Amino acid sequence: MLMKMSSLFVRTLREDPVDAEVASHRLLVRAGYIRRAAPGIYTWLPLGLKVLAKVEQIVREEMDAIGGQEVHFPALLPKEPYEATGRWDEYGPNLFRLQDRKGADYLLAPTHEEMFTLLVKDLFSSYKDLPLALYQIQTKYRDEARPRAGLIRGREFIMKDAYSFDVDDAGLERSYELQRGAYQRIFDRLGLEHVIVRAMSGAMGGSRSEEFLHPTAIGEDTFVRSPGGYAANVEAVTTPAPAPVDFTDLPPAVVLDTPDSTTIDTLVEAANRLHPRSDRPWTAADTLKNVVLALVHPDGTREVVVVGLPGDREIDLKRLQAGVEPAEVEQAGEEDLKAHPELVKGYIGPAVLGPNGAPRDENGDGGALRYLLDPRVSPGTSWVTGADADGKHVFGLVAGRDFTADGTIEAAEVRAGDPAPDGSGPLELARGIEIGHIFALGRKYAAALDLKVLDQNGKAVVVTMGSYGIGVTRALAALAEANHDEHGLVWPMQVAPAHVHVLATGKGEEIFAAAERLAQGLEAAGMEVLYDDRPKVSAGVKFADAELLGVPLSVVVGKGLADGVVEVRQRRSGEREEIAPDLAVARLRELVDEALAG
Amino acid sequence: MLMKMSSLFVRTLREDPVDAEVASHRLLVRAGYIRRAAPGIYTWLPLGLKVLAKVEQIVREEMDAIGGQEVHFPALLPKEPYEATGRWDEYGPNLFRLQDRKGADYLLAPTHEEMFTLLVKDLFSSYKDLPLALYQIQTKYRDEARPRAGLIRGREFIMKDAYSFDVDDAGLERSYELQRGAYQRIFDRLGLEHVIVRAMSGAMGGSRSEEFLHPTAIGEDTFVRSPGGYAANVEAVTTPAPAPVDFTDLPPAVVLDTPDSTTIDTLVEAANRLHPRSDRPWTAADTLKNVVLALVHPDGTREVVVVGLPGDREIDLKRLQAGVEPAEVEQAGEEDLKAHPELVKGYIGPAVLGPNGAPRDENGDGGALRYLLDPRVSPGTSWVTGADADGKHVFGLVAGRDFTADGTIEAAEVRAGDPAPDGSGPLELARGIEIGHIFALGRKYAAALDLKVLDQNGKAVVVTMGSYGIGVTRALAALAEANHDEHGLVWPMQVAPAHVHVLATGKGEEIFAAAERLAQGLEAAGMEVLYDDRPKVSAGVKFADAELLGVPLSVVVGKGLADGVVEVRQRRSGEREEIAPDLAVARLRELVDEALAG
Repeated sequence: MLMKMSSLFVRTLREDPVDAEVASHRLLVRAGYIRRAAPGIYTWLPLGLKVLAKVEQIVREEMDAIGGQEVHFPALLPKEPYEATGRWDEYGPNLFRLQDRKGADYLLAPTHEEMFTLLVKDLFSSYKDLPLALYQIQTKYRDEARPRAGLIRGREFIMKDAYSFDVDDAGLERSYELQRGAYQRIFDRLGLEHVIVRAMSGAMGGSRSEEFLHPTAIGEDTFVRSPGGYAANVEAVTTPAPAPVDFTDLPPAVVLDTPDSTTIDTLVEAANRLHPRSDRPWTAADTLKNVVLALVHPDGTREVVVVGLPGDREIDLKRLQAGVEPAEVEQAGEEDLKAHPELVKGYIGPAVLGPNGAPRDENGDGGALRYLLDPRVSPGTSWVTGADADGKHVFGLVAGRDFTADGTIEAAEVRAGDPAPDGSGPLELARGIEIGHIFALGRKYAAALDLKVLDQNGKAVVVTMGSYGIGVTRALAALAEANHDEHGLVWPMQVAPAHVHVLATGKGEEIFAAAERLAQGLEAAGMEVLYDDRPKVSAGVKFADAELLGVPLSVVVGKGLADGVVEVRQRRSGEREEIAPDLAVARLRELVDEALAG
Repeated sequence: MLMKMSSLFVRTLREDPVDAEVASHRLLVRAGYIRRAAPGIYTWLPLGLKVLAKVEQIVREEMDAIGGQEVHFPALLPKEPYEATGRWDEYGPNLFRLQDRKGADYLLAPTHEEMFTLLVKDLFSSYKDLPLALYQIQTKYRDEARPRAGLIRGREFIMKDAYSFDVDDAGLERSYELQRGAYQRIFDRLGLEHVIVRAMSGAMGGSRSEEFLHPTAIGEDTFVRSPGGYAANVEAVTTPAPAPVDFTDLPPAVVLDTPDSTTIDTLVEAANRLHPRSDRPWTAADTLKNVVLALVHPDGTREVVVVGLPGDREIDLKRLQAGVEPAEVEQAGEEDLKAHPELVKGYIGPAVLGPNGAPRDENGDGGALRYLLDPRVSPGTSWVTGADADGKHVFGLVAGRDFTADGTIEAAEVRAGDPAPDGSGPLELARGIEIGHIFALGRKYAAALDLKVLDQNGKAVVVTMGSYGIGVTRALAALAEANHDEHGLVWPMQVAPAHVHVLATGKGEEIFAAAERLAQGLEAAGMEVLYDDRPKVSAGVKFADAELLGVPLSVVVGKGLADGVVEVRQRRSGEREEIAPDLAVARLRELVDEALAG
């Protein structure tokens, strides 16, 4: 059906929307593809819906190609299955919860592991039924604290979520690899650059997980790469633990006066001024910084904890968060400090923390605050740190000799140049948008919901699962992000709302007649056409709109017509060529086919 | 992609689900098309999703054909627009309401008039932009008090909702007729018998409204038809008001003893026994019954009202409900009666009701209960009715002379044989499922949300709108309801999950090889094929499953193969023919094309 600009439900905007921080958001709104309905919630206008349908279709074809079967689950779901796996609580405030008229609890599903598990349990019962791969393309909900960047972090969004079911670990491995391959083909077909990185499983659970990141400066995720091929989401980077150091010959620790040294900078300055050492100056890397934080557990309890890390590193709250899920991390407040008078601000040291502090009861309750250490603070390392008294630090405090902790935690920032954990060289940092995430879930959900099948020996075994998500609307935003210039969008042919944009520029009736004939001819030749038939709209406005809308090819039917030519323009390269109207259909068919062939 | 039963995510059930009252629900569950996730909330399995996609596609094509432009709105919406039109309250407990993490109010949309109105206001501003028709196929929510009959009355369901925007009444009339025509074509293409009936606009508002009903004994809606072509939903039937009767010569009313006559039956018996009249016996039709009811208004206030109607008619609560919307009708309880001691149970009469009762203040508040009359209780009609004293009725009480009311109401049941309001003959009653509903909304929403455009004279005028809905999932259920037999579903070709079901019955490898070859051949010829390749499953089970699943054509590749034949079966007619395997593809292509051509 020929789309005509005179009646198409679209209005382009010359001004950026005030709330738009990123190009995809700005341009998708300005070009009339989407409109905001509420924070993080968008309406799809006709052109946007066409692009969305094409993205969905590519995802669907590749899922079908690996034997995935499409189903469709409700968005409104009862609480019970999510309670059985603990996620009703673990999701915390990210879950939209509601009650029906009878007071029964429901949620708007952020992801459907539980429901797929229960459905397979309902239908299948034998190892012969497996492997099984199911998927859906469906609307999901997540009550983000800070919805932002348009479609990139929304509260109502479309995901493709797939789930695999296997009888054993080898089967899961095969299913995981099949999905991984399909994801690569999907993003390749979309023309979306992507890096596969190791990731944390987080609230999802499971043994192995990888993210597909689209590298872009506006990405919310930071990831690392090494020359040797290591790649990981920054949350998943592990710090190589230094080998233990023999501390038998180290001198005993001494407490020294360090007045007015409540920050790492002032401490280093005081140490060098008051207690210089002969061989080299003190640096921030010699200090052990103890940072007070609060964890809010899913049941609502608040726990104050202390994280110790080298003074030259900052805490990365997202890394810390990933390490303590499902609890949520917050900065500790004045109230938290008041409740713990043993914490002397600016002079907190290990002596009052964790196993070194007040003893706990037989259940491990009460006593000193939990104390977690950066892996670099390994046995035998020696530190300058707080002496738990105002104006005093302790020098030469040796880990493993003078203090211990409740455990280690990956909470320190990762820096460019840090060694890759697998020894493959120094890390470089980059930013990306998470467009896909695959999880080898294992048996967490199947065990919680009792999904078993009979194996070859007639024995009931718990099924092992994988879960595989693509943010469909987010991938569309990433495409807009990667395909635009200062004038507007530049869609790849395979997802463009139309293949060719025909512009009638000029006043003569013959121009409009020729343009319409051409548009019809293009459509008859199997192309999707947007025809700018607006009378009384200047050529300049039509050109600007065409560049903003971003259809890959356009044909200008204007004053050249008198000389027997129309102009074919390529949006991406800016290339222009004049051609006789009679040859235009064949030429455009050729250009469209070339672009679709990639 | 060839669907193989050995790996297809489906399990047929031999037993009916316990909660299934109607055939469509029973068979869609048994055949593995849908599964219940929660009351009124269903999951779509692969075969169900294929049928759903075909129904949606037919709807989409016909919407596009009348120039409808597809958009897609969120399901999760902010409260404010619905508050502006009053529907946040009017929907009462039927609306799923929730709050986000910041405490802002949201709803799961049951329909999107407000959002479409605001979007058009956002984009368009001139009469030149109109007429405009937009639609979406989208998931809707309604917290039904009694979800039932599977997909027929669900709480999460798919609707196609369309909206038209015009500058004047004539435009709305044209838009309405276009949609009406598209609806007829949609239901014709689906092969779904339908009757167009007048309907009430209800909470939707507007001047004109028609329902598309699919006639079926299990329908929840009752409708009427007359020989002269009148058709209406029973809620919309109006009672022809009798011409006023001259009451100047009527004798005065008298109060008579009627002990133990608290029901119409006992009253008629007592009247004939104690106060017989000479010309004919008293009947229930001579009595005026006053029924006490409670209205719960959207703001939560409860109002007790009395409805007076001829004693031979019962109250039809659905008709009454339609007349008092957005209030909800309830039976009056003991508390309601206690609060109004003037109501003498079994002897309630007009003397204490409405304008005849205690006077109201200048605002119309206080005083006697509101009193509403059936139109048959018209001026000059004479009645036997309660005298507001225990054991006493009044005889010969004349409407308009001895009592009046606050208004009339259509609350009495409609009976077969009642006259059509347009004089087109006696009514017959039937039942149906509402599969579509079209509303000439007029300016209610545009006025409430200030949607105006500049007309030809540059004057801002309020836009006039129409709203047009099809219950997509409900239409699918109606199709299943209309197309089944005792063995299972019998899909029409145009919505069937596959065109041909190939069954390999027997044990020989050559049978499976031939069946697979045939299935591939059918697919290569453009047909959609379901192939029952299950080894070790008996022919009987395969035949039963094929009948339950309801694919229109099947081919049995079995023992006949040795004699050079396969058997083609037509699900609906039961016709069978033997044919050489080499000719099967062409023959089936022919049968599929015939069926698709209708």
